[in-house]
Amino acid sequence: MQTLRHNETSLFAYFPRSFALPQLRQDLITGRWVAVATERARRPDSFTQAAKEAVAARDVCPFCPGHESMTPPEVLAYRAPGSPANGEGWWIRVVPNLYAAFRLEADGQERREGRFSQRDAIGACEVLISSPDHRAPTPLLPRRQVEEIVQSYVDRYRHHAQNPALEHVLILYNHGRPAGASLEHPHSQLYAINLVPPTFNDELGGARRFLDAQAGCAFCRTMEDERAAGSRIVFENDAFVVFAPFAARTPFETWIMPRRHRASFGELDLSSEKAAFAEALQLTLTALHEGLNDPPFNYYIHSAPLKASVDRDYHWHLELIPKLSTAAGFELGTGMWINVVKPEDSAAFLRDRIQKKVGQPA
Amino acid sequence: MQTLRHNETSLFAYFPRSFALPQLRQDLITGRWVAVATERARRPDSFTQAAKEAVAARDVCPFCPGHESMTPPEVLAYRAPGSPANGEGWWIRVVPNLYAAFRLEADGQERREGRFSQRDAIGACEVLISSPDHRAPTPLLPRRQVEEIVQSYVDRYRHHAQNPALEHVLILYNHGRPAGASLEHPHSQLYAINLVPPTFNDELGGARRFLDAQAGCAFCRTMEDERAAGSRIVFENDAFVVFAPFAARTPFETWIMPRRHRASFGELDLSSEKAAFAEALQLTLTALHEGLNDPPFNYYIHSAPLKASVDRDYHWHLELIPKLSTAAGFELGTGMWINVVKPEDSAAFLRDRIQKKVGQPA
Repeated sequence: MQTLRHNETSLFAYFPRSFALPQLRQDLITGRWVAVATERARRPDSFTQAAKEAVAARDVCPFCPGHESMTPPEVLAYRAPGSPANGEGWWIRVVPNLYAAFRLEADGQERREGRFSQRDAIGACEVLISSPDHRAPTPLLPRRQVEEIVQSYVDRYRHHAQNPALEHVLILYNHGRPAGASLEHPHSQLYAINLVPPTFNDELGGARRFLDAQAGCAFCRTMEDERAAGSRIVFENDAFVVFAPFAARTPFETWIMPRRHRASFGELDLSSEKAAFAEALQLTLTALHEGLNDPPFNYYIHSAPLKASVDRDYHWHLELIPKLSTAAGFELGTGMWINVVKPEDSAAFLRDRIQKKVGQPA
Repeated sequence: MQTLRHNETSLFAYFPRSFALPQLRQDLITGRWVAVATERARRPDSFTQAAKEAVAARDVCPFCPGHESMTPPEVLAYRAPGSPANGEGWWIRVVPNLYAAFRLEADGQERREGRFSQRDAIGACEVLISSPDHRAPTPLLPRRQVEEIVQSYVDRYRHHAQNPALEHVLILYNHGRPAGASLEHPHSQLYAINLVPPTFNDELGGARRFLDAQAGCAFCRTMEDERAAGSRIVFENDAFVVFAPFAARTPFETWIMPRRHRASFGELDLSSEKAAFAEALQLTLTALHEGLNDPPFNYYIHSAPLKASVDRDYHWHLELIPKLSTAAGFELGTGMWINVVKPEDSAAFLRDRIQKKVGQPA
């Protein structure tokens, strides 16, 4: 007992909660960027494995109606006419992330320590609350509400895309604690940041090589190839194709891609694409939810960096990655993935589930 | 109940355990490689979240003495004189991995499906059993046994480095189920594969740029800088420096680097470096084990690709990554990391623990 108490004290001494602005540090050798954001640290004793995992119960959930004062003031809300800002009456609510790894008020000044360099992590972090219902993940929401979620994505994307200080906007969703969700109430997150993430350099480099060599968009051609092959197709509607990528990294990795070639998610056509995107997203998540008993997952929307001239090269899309396996020493050490399920098998499983659902009367 | 049974049946229909050779698939756009190894799949119903996690109990552990017949025949063992191969009497035992993601008997032939290409995943996967003791992770072993572990790393590394079909040898350790360990009995793993992993292209590119610009090894200079700064140093002995890297990706990420510049782990000097490496590794793991109550972690040894001419550029080292946070949508979507602990703080914590331990009589 005394040992435990002693441990806690000593841990606090080493890890004071720092309220300094978050910093970006660059690895000297690989060029990899890391955001050091100590304000996000939970109590330092949470690093000891004995610490109990506390999930916010419903009555103290900061995202539930009636608890609006527990979050920073809303930056967007779809709410009943006449209902007051930061009160009840909303069906979509967007608020700044209380534990932001990036801050808009930072100055981005580079600081050097010998050969090491770091700079302020500039950006905005927001939480997009999916609905007032604490226990309704996307599969359980009315389709109309999923369309409102998509609308909120577009609204916030377009808002941040106008900020000349920013380079990139990422919208993502973490479902379940093993996939990194710290609060149970369903919500998406937005990161609008002042650098181009490394994954985009890889994607853009490959897309450019493809464009130069074969005179076409790599994503458009991939969709054509997938539709011709058929074996990895999960679902199609007028505006979107859902498929398991040929080199899927994890069991049940699935991409949702617009048929219409556009580099930026901000160009989503609200009249012709919004409902179709909501349909593709909800059907895919429902097949996963029902077929695999509500597994944890992450999804994110990949959209062109804001200032890159890549209208021809890039093609926005959503990547859905269920958390059914663990990235271990091999993945960390090599940057490669080992997938124990063929994407043809996972696609067939999801496709059959969706066909049964869509085919049968509601 | 019936639903569950039905689910299981239908899952088996989609995911027959395939005994085909593992395949490498390349992502068309990013160039990222994925090994598709369906033989590694556990029962397909393990993907449903209801499936119970079964940890092999001690009496059925294939790595315990007396159970040697449960593994493929050993490829190396340090054992008592006169004790029979694949019987008891060993203190280190190395066996092929039963669930190999890479196979030496594959032909590496490339197969194309339109624009998509895949080839056999050629390589060897081995398990290096740390000791006969099911319940003794590295911190609890005698130092002499840790030196034997290092000896087995070197022996197997040098063995595979002679195979002209292979490009790279990775040795790694997964500790704890959240870090991907599927069997409790402490063991390391070796992957000897026929391609250069993506992380090395990043590392080698950065090291080459540094060498060209500043006429020195980036790793040697980093060690000098770290020793001069002092704030991220965890431990030093005659042959190794242990430190938290400036751009640590996760809380308590720690590197162990030899002072002597050598590109390949295979060049470890058994007389001057083996004991020092074992000391640095065991003290670091013990500080982590005792200070944070036995957290899960991964470590891997980064060594130069076998056929690369990088004697001047590269510098082998070990990277230790505790699993104290979850890579979620942000990390997957951007390739960036958010670290909630400053490496200066984690280094001070581990350094003080080790100093107390080394300073006090055993």
